Order: sequence, then structure tokens, then C-alpha cells
Amino acid sequence: MNTSFFGELLQTISDRGRALIDRRRVDPDTAHSESLAELCEQLLSIRGEASEVALAREILARYDELTIGPRIAFFETLLLRFGPDRTRIEKAIEAWHGSQSEETASALHMQCEPRRQELFRRLNLAPQGTAALVRMREHLLDVMVRRPELAPVDSDFRHLFASWFNRGFLVLRHIDWATSASVLEKIILYEAVHQIHDWNDLRARIDPPDRRCYAFFHPALVDDPLIFVQVALTREIPSAIAPILAPNRVPLDPDRATTAVFYSISNCQRGLAGVTFGNFLIKQVVAEISREFPRLGTYVTLSPSPGFSKWLKTERATIDSAGLSEGDRTILARLDQDDWWTDQAALTELRDPIMRAAATYYMTGRDRRGLPIDPVARFHLGNGARLERLNWPADLSPRGRDQSYGLMVNYLYDLGDIEKNHEAFAETRAVIAASAVRKIARPARAAAPAPAKVEPAAPSA
Amino acid sequence: MNTSFFGELLQTISDRGRALIDRRRVDPDTAHSESLAELCEQLLSIRGEASEVALAREILARYDELTIGPRIAFFETLLLRFGPDRTRIEKAIEAWHGSQSEETASALHMQCEPRRQELFRRLNLAPQGTAALVRMREHLLDVMVRRPELAPVDSDFRHLFASWFNRGFLVLRHIDWATSASVLEKIILYEAVHQIHDWNDLRARIDPPDRRCYAFFHPALVDDPLIFVQVALTREIPSAIAPILAPNRVPLDPDRATTAVFYSISNCQRGLAGVTFGNFLIKQVVAEISREFPRLGTYVTLSPSPGFSKWLKTERATIDSAGLSEGDRTILARLDQDDWWTDQAALTELRDPIMRAAATYYMTGRDRRGLPIDPVARFHLGNGARLERLNWPADLSPRGRDQSYGLMVNYLYDLGDIEKNHEAFAETRAVIAASAVRKIARPARAAAPAPAKVEPAAPSA
Amino acid sequence: MNTSFFGELLQTISDRGRALIDRRRVDPDTAHSESLAELCEQLLSIRGEASEVALAREILARYDELTIGPRIAFFETLLLRFGPDRTRIEKAIEAWHGSQSEETASALHMQCEPRRQELFRRLNLAPQGTAALVRMREHLLDVMVRRPELAPVDSDFRHLFASWFNRGFLVLRHIDWATSASVLEKIILYEAVHQIHDWNDLRARIDPPDRRCYAFFHPALVDDPLIFVQVALTREIPSAIAPILAPNRVPLDPDRATTAVFYSISNCQRGLAGVTFGNFLIKQVVAEISREFPRLGTYVTLSPSPGFSKWLKTERATIDSAGLSEGDRTILARLDQDDWWTDQAALTELRDPIMRAAATYYMTGRDRRGLPIDPVARFHLGNGARLERLNWPADLSPRGRDQSYGLMVNYLYDLGDIEKNHEAFAETRAVIAASAVRKIARPARAAAPAPAKVEPAAPSA
Amino acid sequence: MNTSFFGELLQTISDRGRALIDRRRVDPDTAHSESLAELCEQLLSIRGEASEVALAREILARYDELTIGPRIAFFETLLLRFGPDRTRIEKAIEAWHGSQSEETASALHMQCEPRRQELFRRLNLAPQGTAALVRMREHLLDVMVRRPELAPVDSDFRHLFASWFNRGFLVLRHIDWATSASVLEKIILYEAVHQIHDWNDLRARIDPPDRRCYAFFHPALVDDPLIFVQVALTREIPSAIAPILAPNRVPLDPDRATTAVFYSISNCQRGLAGVTFGNFLIKQVVAEISREFPRLGTYVTLSPSPGFSKWLKTERATIDSAGLSEGDRTILARLDQDDWWTDQAALTELRDPIMRAAATYYMTGRDRRGLPIDPVARFHLGNGARLERLNWPADLSPRGRDQSYGLMVNYLYDLGDIEKNHEAFAETRAVIAASAVRKIARPARAAAPAPAKVEPAAPSA
Repeated sequence: MNTSFFGELLQTISDRGRALIDRRRVDPDTAHSESLAELCEQLLSIRGEASEVALAREILARYDELTIGPRIAFFETLLLRFGPDRTRIEKAIEAWHGSQSEETASALHMQCEPRRQELFRRLNLAPQGTAALVRMREHLLDVMVRRPELAPVDSDFRHLFASWFNRGFLVLRHIDWATSASVLEKIILYEAVHQIHDWNDLRARIDPPDRRCYAFFHPALVDDPLIFVQVALTREIPSAIAPILAPNRVPLDPDRATTAVFYSISNCQRGLAGVTFGNFLIKQVVAEISREFPRLGTYVTLSPSPGFSKWLKTERATIDSAGLSEGDRTILARLDQDDWWTDQAALTELRDPIMRAAATYYMTGRDRRGLPIDPVARFHLGNGARLERLNWPADLSPRGRDQSYGLMVNYLYDLGDIEKNHEAFAETRAVIAASAVRKIARPARAAAPAPAKVEPAAPSA
Repeated sequence: MNTSFFGELLQTISDRGRALIDRRRVDPDTAHSESLAELCEQLLSIRGEASEVALAREILARYDELTIGPRIAFFETLLLRFGPDRTRIEKAIEAWHGSQSEETASALHMQCEPRRQELFRRLNLAPQGTAALVRMREHLLDVMVRRPELAPVDSDFRHLFASWFNRGFLVLRHIDWATSASVLEKIILYEAVHQIHDWNDLRARIDPPDRRCYAFFHPALVDDPLIFVQVALTREIPSAIAPILAPNRVPLDPDRATTAVFYSISNCQRGLAGVTFGNFLIKQVVAEISREFPRLGTYVTLSPSPGFSKWLKTERATIDSAGLSEGDRTILARLDQDDWWTDQAALTELRDPIMRAAATYYMTGRDRRGLPIDPVARFHLGNGARLERLNWPADLSPRGRDQSYGLMVNYLYDLGDIEKNHEAFAETRAVIAASAVRKIARPARAAAPAPAKVEPAAPSA
Repeated sequence: MNTSFFGELLQTISDRGRALIDRRRVDPDTAHSESLAELCEQLLSIRGEASEVALAREILARYDELTIGPRIAFFETLLLRFGPDRTRIEKAIEAWHGSQSEETASALHMQCEPRRQELFRRLNLAPQGTAALVRMREHLLDVMVRRPELAPVDSDFRHLFASWFNRGFLVLRHIDWATSASVLEKIILYEAVHQIHDWNDLRARIDPPDRRCYAFFHPALVDDPLIFVQVALTREIPSAIAPILAPNRVPLDPDRATTAVFYSISNCQRGLAGVTFGNFLIKQVVAEISREFPRLGTYVTLSPSPGFSKWLKTERATIDSAGLSEGDRTILARLDQDDWWTDQAALTELRDPIMRAAATYYMTGRDRRGLPIDPVARFHLGNGARLERLNWPADLSPRGRDQSYGLMVNYLYDLGDIEKNHEAFAETRAVIAASAVRKIARPARAAAPAPAKVEPAAPSA
Repeated sequence: MNTSFFGELLQTISDRGRALIDRRRVDPDTAHSESLAELCEQLLSIRGEASEVALAREILARYDELTIGPRIAFFETLLLRFGPDRTRIEKAIEAWHGSQSEETASALHMQCEPRRQELFRRLNLAPQGTAALVRMREHLLDVMVRRPELAPVDSDFRHLFASWFNRGFLVLRHIDWATSASVLEKIILYEAVHQIHDWNDLRARIDPPDRRCYAFFHPALVDDPLIFVQVALTREIPSAIAPILAPNRVPLDPDRATTAVFYSISNCQRGLAGVTFGNFLIKQVVAEISREFPRLGTYVTLSPSPGFSKWLKTERATIDSAGLSEGDRTILARLDQDDWWTDQAALTELRDPIMRAAATYYMTGRDRRGLPIDPVARFHLGNGARLERLNWPADLSPRGRDQSYGLMVNYLYDLGDIEKNHEAFAETRAVIAASAVRKIARPARAAAPAPAKVEPAAPSA
């Protein structure tokens, strides 16, 4: 007696409902040509629960068979045909002006709602409707790269998902070698930061006594995690990723550990972009681990710097940029050398200039909203962490070189400061960093723009 | 690592947040006089997650200490001060008229939303916020008996609860003697139809092999059921409640049963009135039981007639009413006799007139919306059941005599017809009944009003 | 798919096997007169698994219907007819003398085994056979009060149970208000030390945050605990039971507790007498609680003195006994007064003499094996605890007065000393006690007898 | 709070006990040279629970480090030094002859028991002692191939394991893709009949809707299965293994299946050889599957014939053997051809002779005990199955050709006959086979020896 059983039941009911739909509404000759849009109109007008469920299921099944072209057409229909109804809005405005009351305001509220929202709510009645809608939004996000005008449709998805994936419904689970294979294969699939190659590799991440993995789940997406974090227990703040992932390392007795390192945080559902859980995940995992190992004193990440390479290239390309001294600019030219990462002399020479550039990147690099350029920094600073240390070279894998010339950083979660930092960042965008970082950063040229409400950023550790 | 653990964590975070609030915002001299309304305004304007959680918790804690007078005052504040903002609506209308677009429609939509809705959403962030809001609505419903003008506040609660208590998040659990005591004590407490007196009585309801009990749970209300149903497995459709509840009855071997009788359905959360789960519960339980006992062929209720006594009194008091023949009217006068239920001759004489009156009550008794007067009939007919049989005398307990002169009825859930009936009832309000019932009903005098969208009714079996 | 399902399956198999037995072996005319003993002989000689299971089940079913007389007769049959087979023993001895080898020794070993043991092993094949055999031994123990000659039968039960209830198969479970009602009702039933009156009383024992209850379970006795312990978290070592059981007491915040008090330990299965789990239970619970509340420093019992009244009466009745001084003897006469426990003056006067007598009782009272008379003392001292403190008056309930004139004691489990004490007690019977107790005890008159292997004693807290 | 926690606790206790042992008993100079045998003697003489546990753990740890030579020496010590004590046996015989009583018989029984048994019981007290002893017996079985004289040691292991792995303690679990990875990796490891190559291969065995896998577990071997069976749901009795294991086959809708095929049964613990669970496993799985799919009517195996090649070679090598006609003998010579299995003409020609030889092999091939030569036949016929069909060519994999020239057979479990067949086989060794098999078998030359108690055989499907 569980969710999947419930799913079967809904399917049975909707099968019966479908028989009713077919009998009553669908002209057999035109059945095939009937467009998805017309079925959606039907779904919005229909009355009778079984028919709703059946129709919702039918629509999702047909959507599932669409190729890319018709899919875009469908999204355009959602935009143009299932937006707010202008005539009704006008009528409701008229009624409101006739008599300003709770009732007329409420009617106006309802009439201004894009019809898509009610459509999505009804599609959600289908068995596994939530998962189908999350996938639909994935498709939409892909399409939006070239069709930014679809943003209002995306906005309705996001609005509904924020409500459905309310944090109160999230369940934290410890993932280990005793976890079900059906969940573990998703961990392999979703790991976004440091790829997991196979089941042996997975085991090395979750099974040793000095490793932990936690994930958030939601009742509507059974056995499919929303986000997970991988943790290493260590005796010091790590400065490189390789020792953590080393295949034949000797595990540490966790009772001797002093430090919990969050070295990978992966969002699993691209369709839930913008509905953030990472903040809660980290705090809950900190609480969980500190309960299991009361002696741990330090909670820290080992995080990538996904925007550093791009920023540094721009700075180097900009004559007279504020971020680099002339001396550093000269030395950094060695990065253009094909094999700089294998040249010990280059590494030695580059170290200080890179560290200074990195400090400047974090302390002064700002996007249009006045927030740190680095998305991972936005996430952790937004959670109340402190930028604790820059590490170089910390990740000389192709990906690490590509996105950050091998730089990684540690964000520190100090339970005593976390809320104060969070408030400070939310209100003033102040980048809280250790003095060792602050000291070597070059000053920002211009003032940051005025604070605006800070959007939560997607973590990738 | 579970919900209650998560609750603890939120508490810790909000404790820290509270410290921040206290430090920064609250003037110590005026702290105590600061009104709840002002805290609510703060909650709507605040930025920073910990502070939100802390403030939400503070507001709910203060609300909890209110006595009845201040509570009413608080609800009035919610009505008057946290409704839609007229100035903003006007501005948004202006913008819409300036340029009709998705964006201006969406802005208008948001500005018309009563501010209460966002307030409730933020209160929901507090630990156990959902449960607190459900209780708050209970209080509101109590108050509304005398203050119907508070309806818009209630409407906002209901809107949010319908979304939060989405059927996809409900979990069905079999309740039996192996269930946790903390859940079982709630079953004792919430049983609304046939009172459970103590733990022995409870055991007689859920432990014998020919008894089943199922409940729906929601992740935000841990161990607190939303609704539950009690089922007896029998060899025939029962015509009275006493044999089902008899203390020393011999249980039936469930493999010999032919019939599942839903003899009690209780909603547990008064604060969720209007957010219906009963329909899903029954269908899911039918599926569950039929899987366990494939030989069962009949799914039927044994239900009270909560509106019959009142209707009959009115009919009898109305000279020339359509519902009663003159002959029956005369015999029914015996109901005025003090001890009619112990007088065998009276029972014999009353039987046929009562049955005719009951058939007329169900077939023709309509409320202002054109729906059956009887709320239990509205629920089961709305689910697609058929009124199968009238039983008299079926419940001569004081409560049974009081609400229905001892009448009980069976609604039949025939899986093959359930959706067709549901559709018919939803669209035309047709009362589907067995011919034995239809034949003895007197015709309705006036036509029923035109159909309107049918509201789901609360079940009480 | 669980134990009870497995039980059903075995039943099905044995039903089929029974059909075979009936068909082949049982002459219908004599079926009823066929004695249990003959069925037992059949069970020992039969070949074929289904028949074994069926026959075992048949025997246990017939045994279950025996009244007390035939039951005693059955035990006598077990003694006389299912003991070792003398002829076979002689033959096996002969073979051994013919050729001393592993094989002949092994054959001799097998022939000397009472045939009962194999009989019990085969009865254990029946569905729920283990539980049935545990009950059978209960009956046997009752009968043995008057028939001590049945001891060899009991000895075989005990031998097998010790193997089947191997500690490696025991599972510890935390019992609280979330525990299944079917387990909780057994806790009510089995509580042996301080009676639990009803479900509310039970809740007061297991639900408050400063109370804990743990039980051992075995897979063959599903949902039926073997032994359980009740624990109170306090701020000091308690000196009386009433405050712990007080109905309206305010619970202590467990994080402020310093002391875990084991105030009740109940063996549940009388049929498992002599198969001790208590030692393991206490150690495991100490480990469990200290993990949950690392700040706790003191683990102590509040235990009855079940043998004190009897010992004191004997001492008082013995002129010139070593245990009492003349002065104390005179004062202790007040205990003969009907209402001494309500007479404040008596209580004041009695206190010191009682304490001296109690100290003497514990330090010098010895049974024939040289062990402490007090069975609870044997249990806790045998586990490595120390007699920490005498408390008087600590339990003036009728039972407390009756068995110990109101005395209770604390045994202290000091994790650093527990094994050393255990070894000392096991080897020399040394009663480890706090100096405050030792100082006021009167010296023993005679030396204790030489140490023998110490039998574990049954706990009752 | 689970077994592994309990394990930790025992470890803690035994750590303390070890400290005591070290302090008191072990002369530091000779500690290292102290032999395992002497520690075993200590364990048998020691008193005090913690010391026992510590010593048991020490012995198992030291044993674990032994290389093959010392290991054999240790087994010899177990044989020679820890057998029955001759002096004590003589004394006990004397006492028995002095007075024949329950007590003297019981004493004799105890003195004849090899001292190893008590030693093993005490070793079982160590954390994970059971698993260590199972592994120790594996080693012993390996050694016994060359040292059959160690049989008495093995016999003691087997005796104790039969008691500890009592069927009442076995738990059946459905193994599927939702099962924990730690269990699944053991399924990959232990599969003995048709190798599982990797996790994808495993998934193809357990995840499709027409596949099932069930395993027995025991509480003392957490997450380590004892035996498991793989089942395919099909529409007919299969005649070859390849279609069942085909990588890209389309799964069958299980509701359309008519037949459950047990195509692989693997014992996991070599150390438990002779302690059979297979019989129970199959019966329980039949009951489980028939509950899930009531429409299934046929329960059948697809089993290897591990002894057929060897038997056939012997028959062919024996001039005038009874098992083969001259004509068949001539044709069967084609089997000596290198690539007979790829030569379609050879396959066609060989078919009938092979089928006749196979029928003769099953119907008349007997071992010294008069039982079928084929161990798989012994297992299934002993369980009450019927030899239903011979299939050729059914498994032309290298292994299949090697052990059975490609032959596989079906055993049919007919619930109505299973017990009757079982009894018949147990009592008369009658091979129950379908008439199609019986008809083509050649008659046995000599009568089978008289029946003896049938030993259960190890299954390998």
C-alpha cells in the first residue's frame, strides 16, 4: 500500500474515465487530428473527477510523443492561448470599479491568473503528473535558450513548483551502501561535480566510514532524489580534490575526524531550477553529522570556481583592467602555454598571481544585480558561509583547468555566524571572507549597485 | 533523521534568527505591547530566511496564547488590514491599461492577491507551521458562526490548504493493532460516527480478522491522520449497526466474506473542512481490499441519515406538504410518543410510512443549490455510489433516534458504474437509487433548480 | 512476506501432511484413544518432513487441550518414557569399549541424550512451536513445585532454550508511545515490579522525554518481548519510588539529566526462567542511552529487596542471631505494630536499625551456594554492579512493606569497574558495596562456603 | 539500535575483558608464542562473561591470520585434543553402572560430547562469531578433501549449525532493484548456476516485471543471504536457458504468465553445506508467488544435470553397459567430435539417443546409498517434485556442454502431489517422473539397495 499502488489505482480510475471521454466527446473521425491544445481546453472546462484524471493522462501521453518542433509549438500555444484572458480581466476590472470589495478583488485576482496555472494543476492530477511536469519544464528551459519570450510560461511552472516542493515536504535520507540500487543508480547519474564512473566508484564515495552522502526526497517523486551532497570526514580543511577521490586511499577512523567537507552538491532535477533546497540540505546535514560525531568542529566545502577562467580571460584581455597588476598580468601569460599544468616551474611562478587574481575575482567580481559573479559563491555566501581559503592548484583535471585554471575554494559554515552572515549578505551583498583572502584582493574600481532582493543561486558544490 | 528531527533543526535555526530579531528590531520597552498585526507586517516585509522562520514562530506562539476576544480581533485584522491593497490594485490596473501584456497581467494578478495569502505562506515556514495554521482555521470556523463576514479569510485558508494537501502527497496506511499507540489514540479521539469508548473498544474495531481500518496521512502532519474509514467484512449487506458493533460477536473468517461494509468515515481535521479526501480514500480502500480479498464482490456503506429527523418534522408540521400522504402523516404521529422505539407495535406500524418518507427525503429533498439535503448522500452520490437500500429501524441509539428516527441507509459502490454515476450526479444532480427506493418515494412537487458546479460534501459515513 | 506469512505456509504444509498421517497411520476407531505418548513415539520414528510438521502440530494442539491432571501425567511420561534408553546406552558403552574412537564416543553421546531432547526439537518444527514449548515449560515449572522429580525434563527444556535463545539472535528495541499497541499491551501485562494499571499509566512510563523503555525480542516470538527495562532520567540517585511514578510530576528536560535510573526490569517469559538476558540488556541499554545523552554520568538502579522481610523475621525470631544487636532487636519490634508505616515517630526510630539490618542482610546473608540471599542482588552484583546505597523508607506500598518493610536499594553500574567487579564476584562471591553500607553491616558469623560456578539469577529490577 | 550496534557493544565489552585477560593470565614474555590451542583450553576453563567474549574474539582474530599449514595443524588439534575426554567418559560410565539414573545418563551424555562443541559455542560469543565459524568450516571442508580423517570435527560444526540455523529463524525477502546494494553485490557474487557478469546483468535478472528473486536471511548473518532462487514468469515450460537470459528480450506482462520457472537456486554459504534450506525456500516462494499471481498454475524448474556427462562417459566406456543400446552407443560417438554442438546434422542425429540416455540416467542411475546420482535430482525429488521433461539441446554454453552435453531438465512442483511424492521418495527412493521420461528409459540392471534415511542434497537449481 504505497505511492506506486496509489498510482495504479489512479490509472484504473482514469482508464474508466477515458472510456467516458471517448464515448461522449470525441468524434472518432477527428480524434487523431484533435490537437493537444483542444484537449487542454477540454481539461479546463470539464467537470467530473475521473474524466479530469483521464484527460490529464491523455494529454501527458500525447505530449510525450511530440518531437522537438511540435513541442515548441505547444509551448507557444501555452504562451499565447493559455495566458490570462483579456476580456475576463476587463470585466473583472469593471466589477471591481463598480464595487471595491474582497469579492471583486478576489475575482480580479483569479481572472488575472494565466489559464496555464490551472491547466498545470489539472495535469498534475494524472498518475505521476508531477514528474511529467518537471520533465516538461526541462524541455521548456532547453527551448528558452533560443526563445526567451517563453519566460512567462516558465514563470508559471516555477510558481507552482515552489508551492508543491515546499520544504516542509522534503525528507532527508542518508545514502550509503545499504541504500536501494534504484536510488544509487540515480546518484551515479546525477553527480554533477566530480563524475562517478561506475558502481565501484560509487561505493568508494558512500561506503567508507569517513564518507557520508545525504539526499532530499519528495513524496511525489518516489526514489528520485532532488539534491544530494557528498561529505568527507577529514583531519584538516582540504586544499585539493584528488586526495579525497584517490582510489586506494586508507579511510580515516571517523572518530578521529575534526572536519566535515562538503565536496560535491548536485541538483538532480533540472526541471526544478530556481526552486532551491540546497540551503536547507546543508543545514540539515550539518545538524545530522554533528549529532553523529559531536567532536567535529569544522564544516567546510571544497568547491569549484566555475566562473574564474572566464573572468580571468576577460581581465587579461582588458587593457588596464582593475583586477590585475601589470606584473601579474605578465606572469599569467604562462597560462597560454599548452602544458602549463605539468610544468612545475610554471606552477610555482603562477601561484601567487593566481591567488591574487582569485581573491580579486571573489571580492570584487559582480554581476548586473551586484552579486558575486561566481554562482557557487552566490549559493554559499547566500547561505551564510564565509569564503575561507583559496586553493591552487587544487583540481588539474581537464574540467578543473577549463573552468577555473585549477582553482578550488573552501567555504566555511560556522554555526555561530551563519545567520548573521546570511542576513548581511541578503541585505548588503557583503562578501564575508577570511582576512587572508581579503588582504590579497585588489580593490574594486566602482561601487556595487544598490542591493535588490537576492535570488537564490543553484549550487554545484 | 526524520520529520521531527527536521523540526528540531528548524527550531534551532529560528532560535538563532530570533536572537537577531530581538537584537535588531524590537525596542525592549515596547516589545510586549507590540501587536501581532505589527509582527505580521514585519514578516511580510522582512528579508533573510532565519528571521522569517523565527518571526513566523514568534507570531504563532503569540497567537496560541490569545483568548477568544483578542483572537476574534486578530481575525478581523486579517480581514481588514491584510486583504488586497486597493492602491496597488489601482496602480496595477493602470499599468495593465497602459500596456496589456503577460507581465502587466501577472503584476495585476499578484497585486489582487489578499496579503493574507503570503502571510499564511510565511507562517507556514515555522516548525509545525502547517498544523498551527490548520488549528487557526478551526478557530476561525468557530468564530464564523457569528461572524460570517470573515468568510474571505476562510477562503484564503481553504485555497492554500487545497494546494498543500494535494492528493498526490497523501499516504494511505492500514491501521490495526500493530499500529503505533500515538496514532491509535487519535483514532479513538477522532471517531465521529460511532464513538470508540476505550482501548478495548478500539481493539474490537481494528483487530478482528473481519475488520479493517485505513487512514490517509500527510507528511506535514506526522502521525495525525486526515481521515479514516472503518470496514466490516460480512456475508450480506447489513441493515443495522448494532450487530456490527456487538461486543462479543464471533468474527467471520474473512475468506468467507462477500461484502465490505464502510460503516464509519471520519474526517479528523476540522480545520481542513472543504478540502476533501473522502472520495479518494474510499476508492483507494476498495482497491486495497479487493486486492487482499479477490472474492469480495460488494462494496457498500452503512450510513447515517443526519438530516432526516429535521426534514420529517418540517414535513409533518407543514399542512399539505408534498412529502407525506395523509395516511402516513397520521401514523407518523406515533413518533411523538415518548418511548416509540421500545414499543413493538409502534415499530411495526411505523415501518412502512417511515420507509416511504425516507425514500421521498432522499429522492426529492433538495437544498438551495438543488443538491440532496442529506450531506452524507451528497458525499456518496457525488463519489458515484448508488443509494441501495433504506434500513429501519437500524440505529435506535439516542443519537440515531435524534438525527434520523433510527434510519440508516446503504450506498453501493459498483466499480463498473461508479464513474458514470459520478458524472451524472456532477452534471445533472440525478440521485441514482435502487428501484425499490425510487418506487416508494412520492414525486417532488417543484422542479429542481438548474445545475450548478457541485461542491464536494463532508462525509460522516 | 514475514514470519507470520511463513507461519501460514507451514500450516498449509502441515495440513497436507496431516491428511497423509490420517490416511496412513491412524486407525479411525482408535484415533481418539491414541495417547499423546504414542503420537510422540511416532514423531520420533517418522520420516518425511511434512508428516513431521503435521504430527508436531497435532501433538501441540492436543497438549493444549489437556487439563491439569493429564498434563502432569504427560510430564511423567516425558520423564519415564522419553528419557535415555538404557539398553542403547549399554550397547553404546560396549561398542566404546570395543574400540575407543571419535565415532564410538559420538554414538555413546547420542545414545545418552534423553529422547525428550529430540522430541522437543521436532515439536519445534510446528508453526509457532517455540512459543508452545515455552508455555509448556511454564506449566512444567508450576507442576514441579510439588513434583521436584520432574527436574530432568526441565533440564532438557533449559538446555535447548539456552541454545535457541542465543544472545546473538536477540534484538533490542526502544519502546515508546510510537510502538505498536500489540507490543505495548504486553508491556502492561508483563510489568512485574511496579504494576502498570492502564494505558494512561503506561503512557506516563514510556512517553515523557525523561523516560525510556527498552526490550529484547527474538525472531521466533514475534512482538512478544523477552525482557524489558524501564529507565528514568534524573538529576540525582533516587531514594524512593513514589516520586518516579508520581502521576502529575513535571518531566525533566533530558538534556539536564545526569543520572539514568533502571527502576524496573521484568522478565516476560516465565518459561525461559534460567535463560538470562538481563545482563546483556542492561549493558546494551547503558550503551544506547549514553550514546543518546553523552552528558549522563551515572547509571544506577532503584531496586527492591525481595528477601529482606523474610530474613529480618528469621533474625528477629532467632535468639542470639548474629545479624542484629540487642538494641536494634528491641526497636525493630515496632514493625509488629499494625500501622507502623503511617506512624512518623516509628519511622524515625526504626530508620537506623533497619539500615543496619539491611546492610548486614546484603553483606552477610548467604544461601547454600554461598551467594547473596537476595536474588536481585545476585543479579546485579553478578553483572558487575556495586551495591551503592540503602534507602528507607523507599516503598511503603503494600507489596513494598510485605517483601522488604519498605526498603529499596541502588546498584551502581560504573562502566570502568563493571568487568572487574563481575570477575571478582564470579570468582570469590565478593559483595562489592559502598563503604557507607559496609561500615554499618555487622560481621558475618561464619565463613562463606567455597566458591562454586555462579548461576545467573533472575532479575526483578 | 540494531545488530551492528550490538556488535559494537560486544566489542567494547570484550575490549575491557581483554584488558583483564592480558593483565591476569598472559605472561608477557610468552604471549606471542602462546598457541591457539592453549587459548582454546583457557576459553573452556574460564569463568566470567567479559573474559569469555574477549578470549573468543582473540582466538578468532588469531585464527584469521593463520596460513594454510598452521590452519591444518589447528584442525588436527581440534580433532585430537578437543575430542571427547576418554578418562572422563570412563568415569561417567562407572558412575552410570553404579547407579542408572537420569543424572548419571545425563552426565555420561555430557562427558561424551566432544569438547569442540562447547569450544565452538563459546567462540560463537565473539562479535560476529557465527560468521567466523561458518568461514572456519569452509576452510575445514577445503582441507578435508585431502584429510578425510577430520570428519568428526566437521560433524560437530554441522550439528551446531543445524541448531543455530533453525528454519524458524529464517526470514524470506524479495530481492529486486529496490534492494540494498550491499545485498545485491552478494547476489552477484554467490550466483552459482548462471553467472551474473555485472550490475546491468543483475538488473536484467531482478528488475523486469516477469522476473523475481527471493532469498533467505538469518539474523546472525546480517545482509548476507543463505540461499536464493531466481524465478522467470513465462507462458510455457521452458526448454532452454538462453531465451530466459537473453539480453534484449521483451518482458512478459506478468498477468499473462501461466508458469513460474525456478531457473537458478544458489547456496551462498559453503560453510553451511548439509544444513539445507532449499526445500523451505521453494515452498515458501511458491506460496508467495501464487499469492501475488493467483492465475499461475505451473511451478517448474529449469535445472542442470551436473552428473550426466560423467555418467554417459562411463556408460560409453563400459562394454556391455545396461544404460545404452548398441545403436545409441554408435551414434553417441559423435560427441567425441570437437565441434558437435555447432554441427546441425550431429545435433539432429544425437537428439533421440541423448534423450534415451538421459531418461536412463535419471531413472536408473544410483549412488551407493541407492539415491539418484544426480545431486540436483536428489534435491528436487526429495522435495516432492516430479521429473517432468528432458530438454536437449538446452544449454550449449561451455559449462553446459561440459557437465551435461547440453542437457537440462524440468522438475515440476505440483502442490497437490508434493507431499505424497516427498513421502514416497523418502521411504522408497521412487523416482517420480512423467511417463514420457519413463517410457524411453532403459531398465535398471540390478535392484537398488534397501532404503536408508535420505540425506538432503545441496541444490544448484
